[in-house]
Amino acid sequence: MKPKTSVLPLDECDEVLDEWYKEVCYCGGIVEYYPIEGSYVLLDTPMQIWDQIKSFLDAEMKNMNVKKCHFPLTSEVDSWADVLKKSMYPYLRKWIRFPSHLPLKLNQWCNAPRHKLINPTPFLRCREFMWQEGHGAFATKKEAYVDLLKVLEMYRRLYEELLAVPVLLGRKSENEKQVGGLYSTSAQVFIPETGHGVEGASAHCLGQTYAKTFNILFEDKNGEKAMVWQTSWDLNTTAIGLMLMIHGDDKGLVLPPRVAPVQVVVIPEICQGVDAKRIYDACEDIALILERSSFCVEVEKRRNIPLSTRHTLWERKGVPLRIQIGPAQLDNNTAVLVRRDDGCKKSVSRDSLADDVHAILEDIQGSLFKKAKTKRDSCVEEVEDWAQFLKALKKRRLVLAPWCDEEGVEMDIKRRSDGLAKHFGTPFSQPPMSLGTLCFASGKLAKSWSYWTWTSC
Amino acid sequence: MKPKTSVLPLDECDEVLDEWYKEVCYCGGIVEYYPIEGSYVLLDTPMQIWDQIKSFLDAEMKNMNVKKCHFPLTSEVDSWADVLKKSMYPYLRKWIRFPSHLPLKLNQWCNAPRHKLINPTPFLRCREFMWQEGHGAFATKKEAYVDLLKVLEMYRRLYEELLAVPVLLGRKSENEKQVGGLYSTSAQVFIPETGHGVEGASAHCLGQTYAKTFNILFEDKNGEKAMVWQTSWDLNTTAIGLMLMIHGDDKGLVLPPRVAPVQVVVIPEICQGVDAKRIYDACEDIALILERSSFCVEVEKRRNIPLSTRHTLWERKGVPLRIQIGPAQLDNNTAVLVRRDDGCKKSVSRDSLADDVHAILEDIQGSLFKKAKTKRDSCVEEVEDWAQFLKALKKRRLVLAPWCDEEGVEMDIKRRSDGLAKHFGTPFSQPPMSLGTLCFASGKLAKSWSYWTWTSC
Repeated sequence: MKPKTSVLPLDECDEVLDEWYKEVCYCGGIVEYYPIEGSYVLLDTPMQIWDQIKSFLDAEMKNMNVKKCHFPLTSEVDSWADVLKKSMYPYLRKWIRFPSHLPLKLNQWCNAPRHKLINPTPFLRCREFMWQEGHGAFATKKEAYVDLLKVLEMYRRLYEELLAVPVLLGRKSENEKQVGGLYSTSAQVFIPETGHGVEGASAHCLGQTYAKTFNILFEDKNGEKAMVWQTSWDLNTTAIGLMLMIHGDDKGLVLPPRVAPVQVVVIPEICQGVDAKRIYDACEDIALILERSSFCVEVEKRRNIPLSTRHTLWERKGVPLRIQIGPAQLDNNTAVLVRRDDGCKKSVSRDSLADDVHAILEDIQGSLFKKAKTKRDSCVEEVEDWAQFLKALKKRRLVLAPWCDEEGVEMDIKRRSDGLAKHFGTPFSQPPMSLGTLCFASGKLAKSWSYWTWTSC
Repeated sequence: MKPKTSVLPLDECDEVLDEWYKEVCYCGGIVEYYPIEGSYVLLDTPMQIWDQIKSFLDAEMKNMNVKKCHFPLTSEVDSWADVLKKSMYPYLRKWIRFPSHLPLKLNQWCNAPRHKLINPTPFLRCREFMWQEGHGAFATKKEAYVDLLKVLEMYRRLYEELLAVPVLLGRKSENEKQVGGLYSTSAQVFIPETGHGVEGASAHCLGQTYAKTFNILFEDKNGEKAMVWQTSWDLNTTAIGLMLMIHGDDKGLVLPPRVAPVQVVVIPEICQGVDAKRIYDACEDIALILERSSFCVEVEKRRNIPLSTRHTLWERKGVPLRIQIGPAQLDNNTAVLVRRDDGCKKSVSRDSLADDVHAILEDIQGSLFKKAKTKRDSCVEEVEDWAQFLKALKKRRLVLAPWCDEEGVEMDIKRRSDGLAKHFGTPFSQPPMSLGTLCFASGKLAKSWSYWTWTSC
């Protein structure tokens, strides 16, 4: 059972959600377990979803004039990011000479091993992940910033429009930012059931740190040597795990129609004394009509599984829409449509089936996002002082607090909360703040609203 | 310079072709060299071509009902194929129980290190390659065979229709087949300049060897346990190297329009006393019109490079079509189109530009294939006996010979030719053979025509 946010048995919710998640991943045909702990065989559904994520990001990056590349595999490493820099940055130095070579943006898709592994979970904590890492070099700090905002907007659209997962875009704190960088931003996902925050994607302004180390220079308009400003941004297969975790329910997976490899399953409802062939033929006809309208359709053909089990199996897999055709539908030229997200049933004429299916799938996509956003937003709790903060945090709320944004104070917050409070981002979209508002933790003048979440220690 | 087949300095051609190939790869913006021998940085062009190859094969495999999957990365290994079997086959055993589970087909895209490395060359002999490996399990030997033919046809279309590279489909000899398998087939590419044969893709019938080892069984219609018949098939980034090698010329790369990341480059021909802005604007207009018709277009905007050099640079990159706009074209609403493949120039009206560009790109695609096929076919030499065989082989021809197809005789051929002869495939499409034709090597009755090539020892 997926734990309910409203009736949280707080000390158990992590474990309950974890168990539920592993179960729906396995029963929904997402992964097979593997003899090595933290390693999973990824099946057709997640690979197709990952391909869709790649296509979406590739198209967006092409518009942003990001070039593709592939740097050689290196052997066992501690930090893949470090290796990429060591591999890639000497080439930036070689390729960049004049302002006309800027901006230079590169992206690489790769697989990487993860070496530190606690409590393995498919996609979220596993021994291998697939990812995309982008690198940018710019003539000015401002251009780097403007480009990072575009990258974040790309990630936001991926999460919200494709995966129907609401994200919060914001700046990371000094303690959470990429080491050596100037500042970091991210798209953050909140898990209402446990109160945890998970980074959905990140985008860093690296400043000129690496430009200095690797001597990445260009000749500016005055003929003088200038250093580039660098960025990097990345997203990995965590995105798949977050999507599965956010939408799934007690019946299993719930896949958003835009990425579901099977959007519609057609189920012949055969019972005794019924002309089975006519029903099967009608199902095949429906599949053909929907495929012509570019829907991904499958007809359930297994005859040795009881009808109720068949429904359950497809519900577990999270297929957004089920079409049922029985004798009654055969006679009156209708079809019964059952939504996976809310279980609603509707009988429609088969004459306008493609239009109805289109409308319902669009509605499911929108509903999933709206539902997830409402649920997340209902977890937000605004606090003013330390007592309120600690109380909300322990209830595993998404705490919004006025903050002085000082590195020392963040360390202090961690210490005073026994390591349980984690900065979730200083949102770009700031609620209004009254003049003279004080920091919840230090009592100094607050600079901005920031989000905080509970972290397992 | 690319060596000419007609005036082969036979003892130098390998080295000359090798040098030419590495040079065009580097100058055409395909790879950057890397401090580790045999490792290359792959740039935007080859990565985009690889993505097109992936899209083509993914779509074909989807039609063949091949499911996607991803098996965990394993650490350093001698043979990736062996590891995949060890990883994947226990799952086949788990997934397959009834005839309704068959056929089961899986495909995985991966990166793999190559450990034996002699004379490294981009894509053809390098430390890392990307590939696709498919695995099939069938109820009968015949189904496995029929499916392999479909796979080979998919590879043929990829090579011939997309990459414009002619392939020969055939069966491999007993010595060349996959160890442990029943028989192997492949799509072979012949390099006219050196007389070498390169495997473009392979497809194996593994028989029931692994089904026995891994106990992959199903219950047949009589309720008895039966073993599956297995296949595997794969293609790797060698395909990119072969395409570059086959089409390139003394001016650099020549990319087939269907996979060229830039299909058309528009070059403003600015000279003194000309209104540069009007010409640039016309070029941008043209780019916009062509992009609307889904062509991939780039406008040359660099002003600091002399005109002739600019032409050379785009020729090196292999862009199929160059459009030149100068003052004359501005005045009479025309455009000069220059083909990369044969250098032909043509002036066309700008009113029907998209149609003209479409027709010319299609013609280039067809011409590249036809030219490569004619060149390869002109290398074929039919022989009857050992003396003719050896002579043709030493001239590095693509030798077609009647053969008894016996394993011992193949060993004998290798021995007698000092290891220089290599079986290139027994083609599925067999020329007619007179009754009583004898094997060129053993003098026994010949079974079929087979191709042989020269191999460096």
